[in-house]
Amino acid sequence: MTASSVLPSRKHKVVVIGSGNWGTTVAKLVAENTRGHPDLFEENVQMWVYEEKVTLPKDSPHYDASVGDEPQKLTAIINKCHENVKYLPKIALPSNIVANPSLQDTVKDASILIFNLPHEFIGNICRQIKDHILPYARGISCIKGVTVTDDNIELICEYISESLGIYCGALSGANIATEIANEEWCETTIAYNTPAGDVHHAANGVANDSDNGAAALTEYKDARGRTSKNKLTPVPGDYPSLDHHVLQSLFHRPYFTVSMVSDVVGVSLGGALKNIVALACGFVEGHGWNMTAKTAVMRRGMLEIITFGREFFPETIEEKTFWEESAGWGDMIVSCTSARNWRYSKMAVERGVSLEEIEKTELNGQKLQGISTTREVCGFLRAKGVESKYPLFMIVDRILDGTVNVEDIPELLRK
Amino acid sequence: MTASSVLPSRKHKVVVIGSGNWGTTVAKLVAENTRGHPDLFEENVQMWVYEEKVTLPKDSPHYDASVGDEPQKLTAIINKCHENVKYLPKIALPSNIVANPSLQDTVKDASILIFNLPHEFIGNICRQIKDHILPYARGISCIKGVTVTDDNIELICEYISESLGIYCGALSGANIATEIANEEWCETTIAYNTPAGDVHHAANGVANDSDNGAAALTEYKDARGRTSKNKLTPVPGDYPSLDHHVLQSLFHRPYFTVSMVSDVVGVSLGGALKNIVALACGFVEGHGWNMTAKTAVMRRGMLEIITFGREFFPETIEEKTFWEESAGWGDMIVSCTSARNWRYSKMAVERGVSLEEIEKTELNGQKLQGISTTREVCGFLRAKGVESKYPLFMIVDRILDGTVNVEDIPELLRK
Repeated sequence: MTASSVLPSRKHKVVVIGSGNWGTTVAKLVAENTRGHPDLFEENVQMWVYEEKVTLPKDSPHYDASVGDEPQKLTAIINKCHENVKYLPKIALPSNIVANPSLQDTVKDASILIFNLPHEFIGNICRQIKDHILPYARGISCIKGVTVTDDNIELICEYISESLGIYCGALSGANIATEIANEEWCETTIAYNTPAGDVHHAANGVANDSDNGAAALTEYKDARGRTSKNKLTPVPGDYPSLDHHVLQSLFHRPYFTVSMVSDVVGVSLGGALKNIVALACGFVEGHGWNMTAKTAVMRRGMLEIITFGREFFPETIEEKTFWEESAGWGDMIVSCTSARNWRYSKMAVERGVSLEEIEKTELNGQKLQGISTTREVCGFLRAKGVESKYPLFMIVDRILDGTVNVEDIPELLRK
Repeated sequence: MTASSVLPSRKHKVVVIGSGNWGTTVAKLVAENTRGHPDLFEENVQMWVYEEKVTLPKDSPHYDASVGDEPQKLTAIINKCHENVKYLPKIALPSNIVANPSLQDTVKDASILIFNLPHEFIGNICRQIKDHILPYARGISCIKGVTVTDDNIELICEYISESLGIYCGALSGANIATEIANEEWCETTIAYNTPAGDVHHAANGVANDSDNGAAALTEYKDARGRTSKNKLTPVPGDYPSLDHHVLQSLFHRPYFTVSMVSDVVGVSLGGALKNIVALACGFVEGHGWNMTAKTAVMRRGMLEIITFGREFFPETIEEKTFWEESAGWGDMIVSCTSARNWRYSKMAVERGVSLEEIEKTELNGQKLQGISTTREVCGFLRAKGVESKYPLFMIVDRILDGTVNVEDIPELLRK
């Protein structure tokens, strides 16, 4: 294969769907990179914002006396002040982020769609954009989570792929949004199994120079290694190849080290299932056990995540993703020592109240993702009759049920 | 191979060489198990104590008015009060621990020698016991550390094996002695590559029933997979087989979960080299970086430890030991969040003083093991000309030299 390439005449248009704490942070770093790589990307990054009205307090640096206390549109504030005052306050955003309240307008002509919003919204979002995206658009899901019913488990990026008929990879790692927004150093992992037709060399650059989907559709392997029933429209040859190099250029920053892998399953499962383990660690620590016990729980949890991957994604799972990547052990450690599910499960045990109570009093009714993940995954494991292979997961489920006490965790795991 | 066995007529005699904080803790759990398994072990556990005189304060529950302030022998206090008042105070020891000030008398007739003392003493200890041990004795080293010169790297258990002409395995894990002494739950890993002749079935139980070394000497593979130049005297057939089952029975407690593996190299390297990473984590945290940055340093450190194992022990290294075992990621996490090297390197950066200064003011002149490990390992890597593969290790060395600043760590690792 010759590596000589035709000079691309077009650039990738990148958009971010979602503008919470994490969505805005990712938009920030991506917008810094589109500006830094004018050869690869259009400079402006559209960011879809669920429109709401915000009243700026008088002591805000963005307070405008001529507007006064009149509530303003969040998109208007972001585009004028370059700050997401509601979800990522006090962080200056690059001026090439364009907040857009229209989902359809945001995704129009975009070749790279970055999904970053609470996972319960993804179904609705995909339905709304399905007929408005480019046929050769590609996705990166920053959404941690899996969709589990008693019958089936589906990765978020699989769901996006299937419902939109495009290829979608996943980003996950030992990441805390506000720290990254403050440009404190950390690492992440992007899993992307580049579809063959998206890499352009001179030969197929010529053969594949259409932007209207006229290029030959290509088969691709889905996350489970199956040839997808949907064929894929290749990225046209007049764009830069959409491969690991381009994605790294889009996400890597001096404060955000990106490692590229192909194992979409490993990265997605690690990001979703670690929340079950984080709950367990919060329980154990809240009960007064020390770091060595908590570490033992983390180790057991990691082994169960890998058992899960081997059992339900045997064709494509790569164990080394869990061991070596930020999306594996890295994310596990951070989630079990500094993140949300751990913090509030610890608090629940320390105060002797239920997690539902904590959600009410501390989280203003917001839900802890680890709880639904535990419920769904354990229901699925019971339906499959394999729960005995997952003692830690099942213990967390039974603690949530109130049928097991936290102090029984080591006893149940000691075998 | 038939599994029927002759009924053993003898029992293993277990001794612990060393009586510090960790040595006494291990003696405690082992003595609990020899009492619980009278079929396998002699009940009494001799523990070698470096004799010293101790004065019990008046408020000690062991204070004896008839002795008054007269200093007493530590061995006498342990054997009378069943407490190591100097190195593991306030922990009741089983009465079948027998403190013994004579090294030669301690090891006499022992079939299982547990080594648990600061690693700088091991050379002298081996010289003193060499001519006094049973030819078929077996060792377990609880000593974390490696002996490194510019030319060579030697695991502690390799050194014991070679200098005594016996087989020696290793115990390491996410363990903090005082917590285990208090029976707080944690896990550990024992690596032991059982010599073939030590497992007794009916057939070789008959062929191998001598206790004087008359049984045929056997070859064995050393930690690097080489056939040892020394042959091994098999454990006689009238003892219980000395295998994973017996060792697990000797070390496992309800509060101390033991996992048995065969990878002596992995367990030993993990226990030794993680201290370099712990220093780096202390530096990073002392400088004010957050958990995500520290996790990134841990991940890089783990990858370098495995690279080291692959490079210098290619025949026998099993990577899964690092990923899956308490002696791998488990020990790494605990060492980088709650243990000594991490704590004091963090303190040094917070106070803006050198580690030497901290050793003086906080450790009463005691040495931090991570410092000598870093110095020796990095000298070895430079001598081999492979330092570029170990950026994190080398950064720690250069910080100790004062030629790199702590704030440069992420920059140096960001590539």
